[in-house]
Amino acid sequence: MEKNIMDYETVALDDEHDALVIIDQTKLPGTTQIISLKTAQEIWDAIYLLKVRGAPAIGVAAAFGIYLLSRQIVTDDFDTFFAEFGRQKAYLDSARPTAVNLSWALKRMEQVCLQNREKPVEEIKALLKKEAVLIKEEDIRVCRAIGEYGLTLVKPGDGILTHCNAGQLATCKYGTATAPIYLGQEKGYGFRVFADETRPLLQGARLTAYELSSAGVDVTLICDNMSGAVMRNGWVNAVFVGCDRVAANGDTANKIGTSVVAAVAKRYNVPVYICAPTSTIDMNTKTGADIKIEERPAEEVTQMWYKERMAPEGIKVFNPAFDVTDHDLIAGIVTEYGIARAPYTESLQEIFAKKANGQKED
Amino acid sequence: MEKNIMDYETVALDDEHDALVIIDQTKLPGTTQIISLKTAQEIWDAIYLLKVRGAPAIGVAAAFGIYLLSRQIVTDDFDTFFAEFGRQKAYLDSARPTAVNLSWALKRMEQVCLQNREKPVEEIKALLKKEAVLIKEEDIRVCRAIGEYGLTLVKPGDGILTHCNAGQLATCKYGTATAPIYLGQEKGYGFRVFADETRPLLQGARLTAYELSSAGVDVTLICDNMSGAVMRNGWVNAVFVGCDRVAANGDTANKIGTSVVAAVAKRYNVPVYICAPTSTIDMNTKTGADIKIEERPAEEVTQMWYKERMAPEGIKVFNPAFDVTDHDLIAGIVTEYGIARAPYTESLQEIFAKKANGQKED
Repeated sequence: MEKNIMDYETVALDDEHDALVIIDQTKLPGTTQIISLKTAQEIWDAIYLLKVRGAPAIGVAAAFGIYLLSRQIVTDDFDTFFAEFGRQKAYLDSARPTAVNLSWALKRMEQVCLQNREKPVEEIKALLKKEAVLIKEEDIRVCRAIGEYGLTLVKPGDGILTHCNAGQLATCKYGTATAPIYLGQEKGYGFRVFADETRPLLQGARLTAYELSSAGVDVTLICDNMSGAVMRNGWVNAVFVGCDRVAANGDTANKIGTSVVAAVAKRYNVPVYICAPTSTIDMNTKTGADIKIEERPAEEVTQMWYKERMAPEGIKVFNPAFDVTDHDLIAGIVTEYGIARAPYTESLQEIFAKKANGQKED
Repeated sequence: MEKNIMDYETVALDDEHDALVIIDQTKLPGTTQIISLKTAQEIWDAIYLLKVRGAPAIGVAAAFGIYLLSRQIVTDDFDTFFAEFGRQKAYLDSARPTAVNLSWALKRMEQVCLQNREKPVEEIKALLKKEAVLIKEEDIRVCRAIGEYGLTLVKPGDGILTHCNAGQLATCKYGTATAPIYLGQEKGYGFRVFADETRPLLQGARLTAYELSSAGVDVTLICDNMSGAVMRNGWVNAVFVGCDRVAANGDTANKIGTSVVAAVAKRYNVPVYICAPTSTIDMNTKTGADIKIEERPAEEVTQMWYKERMAPEGIKVFNPAFDVTDHDLIAGIVTEYGIARAPYTESLQEIFAKKANGQKED
């Protein structure tokens, strides 16, 4: 039997061959190509070119990546090791500016070095591997927990709209925005899902529609500009999306178009839920105004997937990869520690308090 | 010097060769191909396949089309002539259901037959030609008037967002939504225009960005899901869009995504203006709920322009060609007789009263 896309791991470590192994998501859904990345350049390119994408998956890829690169540092001296580690970390960190998980995961890995600086470098490398594996395992647990909390927000038969891909392909399992959908699917909830195609890179058409339909979910593909039509028709009961960075006040950077979906949802009284692992919530970013928004090449809009250019030569293009959805458009932020509601400045702090307590109890 | 797209006529009659001559808009912007249509099937296909599109242009094409087809009816007997005329009219009318101008123009042509039924058939044919030419001339005058009224709603340097193509390519000259932009351009207003690419058929990227940039307008192409980002950045002072049918209460059917732009504009306090020749206002349609929305093939979304399929095989697709923007999201309806404001049920009637008076005064 042909292997289903859901049987592959989005991000995996092939320790034996010193490689980070990913599904090249730029080739989906036409081709399922598994690629091995070994050099810093290969890993950077994979993140920049969205071969691996989705905030949580980028975090895991960066953790495995920096571990593999640390193994290539030939020295017994911590300072020499750490200087080179820092150089590689800064390089990987530069691949994409908006998703906080990239720098979050790299910082966690850096902490492992700093907290164990007295230990032999070889031992630090082993601890780095352990930490990267832990980040991946946490991602799976976190997504499952988000799914369970998210599932309490909907009921069997509901229509759910999602934008971009915050699915299994954006994480290690379950996804974030798709986690309630997958858990509901296991329970026979019979959701009707609408997947925005998500221009310009079509993560919704290529990835979300693909992984959900592969899992047997009832999914309908729409263009981004059709959310108004489906919501006006009364077909959507809730919007679930992922996020790349949530600010302390609840403002949320996510894939370009999320703020559009949120404005439309507001119009039709449909609640918008942000599915956010706490790793994606950045309490050091006060509001959405402080989030740097990555702009990408015009060519993604004018010709990337097309048989021929679809816009006149030399046309000016604005191509931001993300936008900020203001917190007042958000009905709830679903984390692995529960659902934060407005006012977010307080509720997100409570989430982190729970996290701190939870960790102590472990 | 290379001919500019703005030098071509969107729709023209080549009476000598019994042909309706159009720019094949499905080939733009890559190729400027002028095609001659002679048979009913060719004309129907051109409308259905969007080789000619835009409510006003469809009306003019249908008028020239039914005139040319009437010339092919070989009889001196009015009843025989009119029966065949009716058959051809019904056929052309079936090409697209949402834009009212198609049936509006065909009905006007039918009236010419009925009002002149006592005259020889050959004379009726000559009168049909006269009426079709008049419909085209009116379109140009109407668009110019809409442009003048629309221009009073903005000021030099303003940012204007438009969706789909309600440009010269959707009419005979000036366009509707673009008319204020072209008139402002003549006056050196220096607008900054944002053109939504308008999935799935990319009329914004292929046509609007093309015709505006050809005319020297400062235009930036964005994906449909970027309207939130540009409006949140404060770059847009007004939205101008065309329409395919305005109901008596102001609810407006226009290209899919218009209701999305309107909801986003509402969020950011940007006024949305519908540019509507009175031929597009259907006082017999009470509200948006009474407007039939054309659905088009899934293939337009999943593969039409692409090098390869961009969505999984067999995926369900919802592909409505239009959506309805509720009247309360509309700041004004700009007609050739002035700007209607809420409550539209009254103001649109006043517009038609002006029209009736204006016609008497002519």
